[in-house]
Amino acid sequence: MINFQTSPDHYHHWKLQISGPVATLSMDVQEDETIAEGYKLKLNSYDLGVDIELADAVQRLRFEHPEVRAVVITSLKPRIFCAGANIYMLGTSSHAFKVNFCKFTNETRCAIEDDSRHSGRRYIAALNGTASGGGYELAIACDEIYLVDDGNSAVSLPEVPLLGVLPGTGGLTRLVDKRKVRRDRADVFSTLAEGLKGKRAKDWGLIDDSFPTSRFQEAIDARVAQVVNLRPDENTQMGIKLSPLESESTDDTRDYKYVGVNLNREKRYADLTVRGPESDLPTTPDEIQKLGDDYWPLRAFRELDDALLYLRVNEPEIGLVCLRTEGDIDNVLALDKTLAANRDHWLVREIVLNMARVLRRLDLTAKSFFAIIEPGSCFAGSLLELALSSDRVYMLNNPDQRIEIATSELNAGAFPMSNGLTRLQSRFLAEPEKVDEVLAHKDMFDTEAAEEAGLITFAPDDLDWEDEIRLAIEERTSLSPDALTGMEASLRFAGPETMDTKIYGRLTAWQNWIFQRPNAVGPQGALTNYGKPTQAQFDYKRT
Amino acid sequence: MINFQTSPDHYHHWKLQISGPVATLSMDVQEDETIAEGYKLKLNSYDLGVDIELADAVQRLRFEHPEVRAVVITSLKPRIFCAGANIYMLGTSSHAFKVNFCKFTNETRCAIEDDSRHSGRRYIAALNGTASGGGYELAIACDEIYLVDDGNSAVSLPEVPLLGVLPGTGGLTRLVDKRKVRRDRADVFSTLAEGLKGKRAKDWGLIDDSFPTSRFQEAIDARVAQVVNLRPDENTQMGIKLSPLESESTDDTRDYKYVGVNLNREKRYADLTVRGPESDLPTTPDEIQKLGDDYWPLRAFRELDDALLYLRVNEPEIGLVCLRTEGDIDNVLALDKTLAANRDHWLVREIVLNMARVLRRLDLTAKSFFAIIEPGSCFAGSLLELALSSDRVYMLNNPDQRIEIATSELNAGAFPMSNGLTRLQSRFLAEPEKVDEVLAHKDMFDTEAAEEAGLITFAPDDLDWEDEIRLAIEERTSLSPDALTGMEASLRFAGPETMDTKIYGRLTAWQNWIFQRPNAVGPQGALTNYGKPTQAQFDYKRT
Repeated sequence: MINFQTSPDHYHHWKLQISGPVATLSMDVQEDETIAEGYKLKLNSYDLGVDIELADAVQRLRFEHPEVRAVVITSLKPRIFCAGANIYMLGTSSHAFKVNFCKFTNETRCAIEDDSRHSGRRYIAALNGTASGGGYELAIACDEIYLVDDGNSAVSLPEVPLLGVLPGTGGLTRLVDKRKVRRDRADVFSTLAEGLKGKRAKDWGLIDDSFPTSRFQEAIDARVAQVVNLRPDENTQMGIKLSPLESESTDDTRDYKYVGVNLNREKRYADLTVRGPESDLPTTPDEIQKLGDDYWPLRAFRELDDALLYLRVNEPEIGLVCLRTEGDIDNVLALDKTLAANRDHWLVREIVLNMARVLRRLDLTAKSFFAIIEPGSCFAGSLLELALSSDRVYMLNNPDQRIEIATSELNAGAFPMSNGLTRLQSRFLAEPEKVDEVLAHKDMFDTEAAEEAGLITFAPDDLDWEDEIRLAIEERTSLSPDALTGMEASLRFAGPETMDTKIYGRLTAWQNWIFQRPNAVGPQGALTNYGKPTQAQFDYKRT
Repeated sequence: MINFQTSPDHYHHWKLQISGPVATLSMDVQEDETIAEGYKLKLNSYDLGVDIELADAVQRLRFEHPEVRAVVITSLKPRIFCAGANIYMLGTSSHAFKVNFCKFTNETRCAIEDDSRHSGRRYIAALNGTASGGGYELAIACDEIYLVDDGNSAVSLPEVPLLGVLPGTGGLTRLVDKRKVRRDRADVFSTLAEGLKGKRAKDWGLIDDSFPTSRFQEAIDARVAQVVNLRPDENTQMGIKLSPLESESTDDTRDYKYVGVNLNREKRYADLTVRGPESDLPTTPDEIQKLGDDYWPLRAFRELDDALLYLRVNEPEIGLVCLRTEGDIDNVLALDKTLAANRDHWLVREIVLNMARVLRRLDLTAKSFFAIIEPGSCFAGSLLELALSSDRVYMLNNPDQRIEIATSELNAGAFPMSNGLTRLQSRFLAEPEKVDEVLAHKDMFDTEAAEEAGLITFAPDDLDWEDEIRLAIEERTSLSPDALTGMEASLRFAGPETMDTKIYGRLTAWQNWIFQRPNAVGPQGALTNYGKPTQAQFDYKRT
């Protein structure tokens, strides 16, 4: 079982050093500390275990070190920054694992950009050696890239020429869409195994500058000082500690404090229940800061995140997740009010941004989601987003029971999807005026009002309810899991596109296709043959 | 060899009737008239041959029948409009053929939308029977959809539940992005094999209206009359005739009047040369109309289109096309001046729109393109777009010879890419001011000026030229063709996204992935097993 939780004391591959407003995140991959058998992590190459630590470090910076204004990502290995994803790991992994591995590493790089965009921390890639493949893709997720000019170190994307696959961790997309490298130069760079150095790398926009070895550290320090001095007074607050999440597991269950997962393996679906907040939550930033990571919206969404990652990687045969909530709607609405009122406080902002990231992780999970709304549920405001993230929403229609849902201020923009829209905007593309109508609706929505408003898909009455849910689950889990993955990826993200949707849609889909092709993974494929004395043999038919 | 040329006299599957301002395009597929062996085209299902006729009809309407204001697409078969792509054809086709087939059908549907958007013809899908799969995808490419209400006829996308593949001819994308169907309803509809009828189909936005059998024809006629009456006086002009393209072929060459293809099969690349216009071209719409389809920009780009389709489908092992031009730059610039000055004349508008479509076909071709600029070439204005479409541009640097390129007014917006930008805008995303600079540049660009302006990739001198081109070709054609396809699809379309780029990027990439998966095409896959007594068996792991 792969565990996504870690903390700096347990890192094998990264050193996180904080010095006032500057964090230095240094990669020093231990080649034997792999997450699976059969390969060594040479030359600062990475596997999922290395990236889980990086993701943890970025997450901790946001909550534990709000004082940090600049993050330097560098390497402790001489002459090498990072060689990217380990090829032997990719060569020996199943298709499903490769796809999930790439998705997680993509999410980590998007989390770096999310921190930069929303929390103003500036990420500086200090390439003290060659950054190839995923190594350069990590650099390109940072705001600035500096490369040592030692006559040898280069940046490169050698995936196409050496491995017959794509730089699929955002590389191709960020090249032309983030750094806006001219497409013909991007073409040359992406087919040049040895990459580019110094002046040409800078002229082409692949790096921001290069410095000779003797001046490299000094130049990085100077740039960091500049960045830090641009925002001298912000966030002198103390951070909060993110403690390990506790959970209890049996064969078929996984229970956190606020999140419970029930696996129905034989029927290939899971029930995932989020338990809503208590009524006595703090309402001021000081009290929230005191409560720290026990505060419901932080704890519950961290647990939800862990549960989603667990389901993705450890339960591949679970094709459908039924999302449920339990609790008091009024408590959720009260909580949302507190969050909305204090969004300019650093901790509340981070808590809300984390909720948004977890919800995007849900959108990007290759499983079907049905929201099931029954008596005792609390799909309101921030928890209503779970229903709005779902592929379908079933809400019981029984006039004899109180079954309601509600919107809050947070549905109006706190949780943007990868396409940049709110889930309400994405839902009502045909009738954009409905977004404001639904948000302005003062009362809660009972089942009929929810149906009328377009917030739910089906509203079976109590006579049909159980059969209808059972049939819907059976039907869904009988369909081709591949077709469902492609269908959901196409239907969930209508409307505008962003760099993120391009990475998770276009680039990932092409990479997944290539990851299936004999030219990459067949017995004579380039990925299979990497490092062997035999040459890859291609079927040269273009498709 | 598959031939993409046809004309109404040769149609097997469609009837094109023109009655004043109304064209009726009726599908009546002859089940034995297939383009390959091993299947019958029952129930108005289609193969590439059927779609080649449809593409031809839409193209002819634009040039031969400018008087047409409304196009009704319907069926001559009772109770069935169209059952979509033939499943047995898909089941017996190679992966490469399936992918190319889907790309062409997508281009045909985009051509319908292009006609509607730019030439104001309104397409009305009159579904006198069930439209399933590709049948509904054809309808959804039209502006309006009307379904007969006979208690039986439905619209449906049964690909996911029945075949384990996607509605990949734009269906999923147009559902949520064009018709803006709510995502949960799109999810239900796309997993419901039997589809939806009448009122619910209308409520969910899948159709515009439904009428009982007895009133169906009358209702369609009334709507058509309305459409036609909205623009009563436009285009009473006579059309021009599109004659068959003539070409001569040997084993290694294919020669049209203005386009020549030279195949270097052993080295897996082709030279494609466009011969520029003569100096005595007409300058007024009347003269152009008189010249008809012999007019260079129409003839040359129709030939280029045919050559690209030929290369795609009949020469799959050709991985690289070297684009060359021959002729006088001044003639191209004079021609562009005429086109630009007369763009409000219907025929000139159609000619320019056709050039734009052919250039988009080039952008979407899964082969690498290198533009090769040598003495005697004429990469100016509309022909400069060939260089701007290429993955790389090589221009000889020899001060002793006249080697120049030039922009014209037509580079400023006449030929938008699928992403909605001009090729200059896509090229200069990082320095948008360069677009205007380059367009304002009065002189021609010699090699050094072209390099300085960012219009070319490499400028080898005459000593290195031959070696450098030879090496670039060898290197390119040695790489994995799949990785190149995915890479080019990612690098060519930076910047904004449109419905078209979503269809060719995201949706197509997912479909291609699924077309490789055992759950669809393995011995127990759903596509393989369709129509057999055995049930599909899935590996239920979600990726």
